[in-house]
Amino acid sequence: MIEDKNPQRTSLSELGEFGLIKHLTKHFEISQPSTFKGIGDDAAVLDFKDKKAVVSTDLLIEGVHFDLAYMPLRHLGYKSVVVNVSDIYAMNAKPTQITVSVAVSNRFPLEALEELFDGIALAAKEYNVDVIGGDTTSSQKGLIISITAIGEADESELVYRNGAKSNDLLVVTGDIGSAYMGLQVLEREKQVFQVNPNSQPDLEAYTYIIERQLRPEARKDIRTLLHALEVKPTSMIDISDGLSSEIIHICKQSGVGCNLYEEKLPLDPQLISVCEEFNIDSTTVAINGGEDYELLFTISMDDFDKIKGNPNFTVIGHMTPESEGIHLVTRANTKIPLKARGWNALDS
Amino acid sequence: MIEDKNPQRTSLSELGEFGLIKHLTKHFEISQPSTFKGIGDDAAVLDFKDKKAVVSTDLLIEGVHFDLAYMPLRHLGYKSVVVNVSDIYAMNAKPTQITVSVAVSNRFPLEALEELFDGIALAAKEYNVDVIGGDTTSSQKGLIISITAIGEADESELVYRNGAKSNDLLVVTGDIGSAYMGLQVLEREKQVFQVNPNSQPDLEAYTYIIERQLRPEARKDIRTLLHALEVKPTSMIDISDGLSSEIIHICKQSGVGCNLYEEKLPLDPQLISVCEEFNIDSTTVAINGGEDYELLFTISMDDFDKIKGNPNFTVIGHMTPESEGIHLVTRANTKIPLKARGWNALDS
Repeated sequence: MIEDKNPQRTSLSELGEFGLIKHLTKHFEISQPSTFKGIGDDAAVLDFKDKKAVVSTDLLIEGVHFDLAYMPLRHLGYKSVVVNVSDIYAMNAKPTQITVSVAVSNRFPLEALEELFDGIALAAKEYNVDVIGGDTTSSQKGLIISITAIGEADESELVYRNGAKSNDLLVVTGDIGSAYMGLQVLEREKQVFQVNPNSQPDLEAYTYIIERQLRPEARKDIRTLLHALEVKPTSMIDISDGLSSEIIHICKQSGVGCNLYEEKLPLDPQLISVCEEFNIDSTTVAINGGEDYELLFTISMDDFDKIKGNPNFTVIGHMTPESEGIHLVTRANTKIPLKARGWNALDS
Repeated sequence: MIEDKNPQRTSLSELGEFGLIKHLTKHFEISQPSTFKGIGDDAAVLDFKDKKAVVSTDLLIEGVHFDLAYMPLRHLGYKSVVVNVSDIYAMNAKPTQITVSVAVSNRFPLEALEELFDGIALAAKEYNVDVIGGDTTSSQKGLIISITAIGEADESELVYRNGAKSNDLLVVTGDIGSAYMGLQVLEREKQVFQVNPNSQPDLEAYTYIIERQLRPEARKDIRTLLHALEVKPTSMIDISDGLSSEIIHICKQSGVGCNLYEEKLPLDPQLISVCEEFNIDSTTVAINGGEDYELLFTISMDDFDKIKGNPNFTVIGHMTPESEGIHLVTRANTKIPLKARGWNALDS
């Protein structure tokens, strides 16, 4: 792979489309038993035997979903895989394969695409998924990444969005809101840089939240952990658009209401201090932020003892009859209807 | 669905991302037994039981793969499905599901997206595939369509690119080159229109080749036909980039050479006369054209009698030992090395 200390710029048209796909994927190894045939034919061939196959797809567009001014291509490649395997984990399934399609304008040299695919390869290794196909082409403007993730699960393992019951507990993994504030810090630094290109940003106070934005991880541990604890969630979703959006998805599809408790929201101390610095309400950030790639799920009250005290989980609310609606219960004990303000790609 | 006689323009941001996906896919029905759960969760769930799953993906970019100046959105939706299911047929498999991701700039009203999805729905019905997922988002420029097609086949049915043997016959379905010349006619009319917007194009002499470009079909009949004839190809590929490119793919992956006979190339009479009008060599068009979505395959010589005289098939050459190379044998009986000049998306 090309090192930064020896920068080169190889024009993509030197390779042509066929050469490019071959070149970018040549180091990708196949490790999943369900991958029967990978890259190199009209289609890949998979064999899930008695398991169910799980399929999810996402499109990432430069200027809409990411900004190359502060997003290194290697991180972007990694994150684009994370975003997709997170959807598979949210089904309580195991990701096994991905396809990767990329469109780039001619301003990208080959070395830039190699960095992107380095990140993709790293994530594929981390999440143990085979890259089984894809497409590379030119774009009129910017970089476009389309990934389809495929996973497998026994039918009995699968968890949908529509299984939550009244009185179930609402649980979230990790902490939330940091990815959003990481983005705010990066946007601010970009503006400073535009005014004064010689400014040296000091980002030490923001390392955690910036990493949550630039280098998120999907919660591959949760499936194993829940299995070990003998807990099967009644519903599950991943937090990509924001906590309130995801809660509303679960409620609408399950036909239940929800009380979410402000005081229970798991916030990182760094997030809280950055919210103070930016004079933004941390609860608003935690609820509407998005891009955390944590898992949100509901469990039966009977399972509470099994997860109690586990540092991976925070009980943040409980489900109610549908007629009671979907509310945030504030620290002052007032109930505010929850709205899906989440990150809406079409507003940007 | 919105009719042209009652044009409306609904801004996409009125619906928001969640409303949009729901709205665009609400008429899509599930008909495949292998679709266990379709749109509406983090991922779709499929069940292929003892069959192999086949997966292929393609990215279509405005200004690179299509021009909305002459490509109606309904046709574009249809064609974007055809392009993908064609890859599944090229594995000798049956397409069963697709995911559809679309990015659009804000200049597209909702009604435009509805037309696109009308075309997608029509093709999904024609090819009997379930739309099981997708993503809609905004783009910085133009329209971007990413489709992943999934199919199924018994292991024994699958045909790869790497099984051609020396002495096998090279067979193509239908006729070739017309889609490319259809594009040339459309490009010419676009230029005429730009000079004189009041010109009324008379396209009657070009109906067939224009339809091949704007409204291609994938060869869903061939799988059934070959099965009925008890012929299993030794290798197969679909013609998207052009005949010469595809022949070279088969030869390289199978480790064989090929003699392709100019006089055998199946050309439509309309194509021949348009090539004369444009003063372009029809053989060059047939070999390098692309986008025909016909199937190219090799069969054992022993199977020749089974396909002889069938109007769907033309034997256009035969495979040779690898050392003999890949050649076009002209009408004058000279041998010219075949080069992959096919439609290269990265040149555009």
